[in-house]
Formats: sequence, structure tokens, C-alpha cells
Amino acid sequence: MEKRKKNAIILGLDPGTRSTGYGLINVSGHSLEALDYGCIRPPANLPLNERYLILFENLEALLLKYAIDAVSIENQFVSRNAQSALKLAVAKGVLALAVTRKKIPLFEYTPKKAKLSIVGSGSASKEQVQKMIQSLLSLKEAPVPEDASDALALAICHSHHMNTLEVTHV
Amino acid sequence: MEKRKKNAIILGLDPGTRSTGYGLINVSGHSLEALDYGCIRPPANLPLNERYLILFENLEALLLKYAIDAVSIENQFVSRNAQSALKLAVAKGVLALAVTRKKIPLFEYTPKKAKLSIVGSGSASKEQVQKMIQSLLSLKEAPVPEDASDALALAICHSHHMNTLEVTHV
Repeated sequence: MEKRKKNAIILGLDPGTRSTGYGLINVSGHSLEALDYGCIRPPANLPLNERYLILFENLEALLLKYAIDAVSIENQFVSRNAQSALKLAVAKGVLALAVTRKKIPLFEYTPKKAKLSIVGSGSASKEQVQKMIQSLLSLKEAPVPEDASDALALAICHSHHMNTLEVTHV
Repeated sequence: MEKRKKNAIILGLDPGTRSTGYGLINVSGHSLEALDYGCIRPPANLPLNERYLILFENLEALLLKYAIDAVSIENQFVSRNAQSALKLAVAKGVLALAVTRKKIPLFEYTPKKAKLSIVGSGSASKEQVQKMIQSLLSLKEAPVPEDASDALALAICHSHHMNTLEVTHV
């Protein structure tokens, strides 16, 4: 049997140039705990390259503050238009760069996969997901804003996968 | 009359995940000199995020080696398919990030604009552009590979713009 690590800190990231949600959880066996969550919001009046830099530097600060074992990032480029899809891809790219640079394992999940993992349905409503996150993390209130909640969902989704992977390896 | 800087070092960048061309020129009045040019070629068998990291780190090394005054980067996302366009956008994004992080001014030009600036025609052939670059930079041979040549073209294009801007300010 493999020696199992006692706990793992997972960071979920929901990329966006206006707002990038982040959610940090501590996984200990089947128990989950929220360590930190929120949004990085680069001022909208800044040039795009400056906004990407703010995302990158704020994520670097998070990676420095916590001993993160894995990062779980949203991977979906369905957007209103091609220009928005490109911006989103670059936002995700610079976040992934900060993670790859620190040699932290990076995993990608679609929003549908994250919902499926948490509520058991890929088409669950935002409220259903938030309620379930609140319950799984024993939070007093549903996590807001939505980007932070989505980031926590991605972290929880990866914790489920991680447990499955571990069981497979036993 | 404004005090004019005696010379300026301009870095041209032609982004790509397979090969990112770079070309460094020294501009002194109307005289141009090639300082360095070539390609960054991340191994194609590496995961995309690792390849972006290689682009980022190699550019960081260039920015450290030379006292670069301005960076001129290709801005065009017309690609065979949407996936290629996204990859190209991210490659450009991580390169721009390295530049923005060092607070070096970044300028963007379309390939058409670069050709127009060098040969006087936006639809000039690759060979025409290379011959003109060879002549402008007094090189013994036409610069190869193509990505390096395109990067030098972008640097020269910006030097033309820069001179125009300076004259305007006099």
C-alpha cells in the first residue's frame, strides 16, 4: 500500500480578465475545509497586458503564501465572441504559467465536470452548486461572489478525483 | 527641441508555440545594426504549459542580457483554426507578460504593417522582405529562419515609427 499524505491543499481557479476566482481548500481524508477564497479583479480601465500582469502577480502571491499541492483550473473557451475567447485563453495561460513555473501539478476541468462532481448533475443551477459547496465545506453562508464559488467547486472537484486516484493506487 | 537619446535597442518578437522568432537591433539616428536574432523552439513533445514557460523564460533571459528600450510584437490571430488562434494568443500573452513585468514599452504591429514599413508594400513576398532586411542591417546573408527574419522586420518597423514620433515631437 502506498504511503498516503495526511492532507493536501488544493487551489481552484476560475480565470477571467475582469475577475479571476480563487478557492483554497484543505483536504484531509474525506474531510474538506475552506482556507481562503475570493477574486482577483484587475481595474477594467487598465490595458489588457497590465491586467494579465495583475492576475499573474496576485496568483504568485497566493502560491507563495500557501503550500499548495495541486491547482485545479477551469478549462472552457465557449464565449460570446472570438475576442472574448482569446482574452480568456490568455488569462488562463498566464495563470497556468505562474503554476507551471513553481512546478505545482496543474489539472483542468470543464465547469460541467465540476458541477457533476459536486451536485451529481452537469446542468445543476448556480444556487444548487453554492448550497452544496456551503454544505461540503461547512460554511456559515454560501460562498460569494460566483467566481469564488466556482473556484471552490473546481478545488472540490479535484479533491474527488484525487481520492479516486489514490484509491486506485492502493 | 527635445533631448534625443543617442541610440535605442529594439527587440522584435514573432510569437509561436513551435517557434518564436526574436530580432534585436540597435538604432542610432537612421543607422540600424543587428545585435542578435534567432528562434526560441520549445520541444514539440512537451505539454503546452511547459512550452509557454520555455518561451517566457528564454525571453526573460534576453530582457536581462540586453538593455532593451522597446519591444515590437506581431499582432495577428488569423489562423488555420480556432485552436491554433488560441495557442498563438497565449504564446503572445506570456511573451507580453515578461515584457510588461520589466516595464519595457510594448508596441504591436500586424505583419502587413511591418512589410509595408520595410518594403513599401503590405503584400511583399517573404524573399523581398528578407532581401530588404539584409540590406537595411548590412548583413552578409539574408537572415534565417523566417521567424527570426519576421522578428527583425518588426523591430525595424518600430524603429521607423519611433523616428517619425521623434520628428513629430521636435
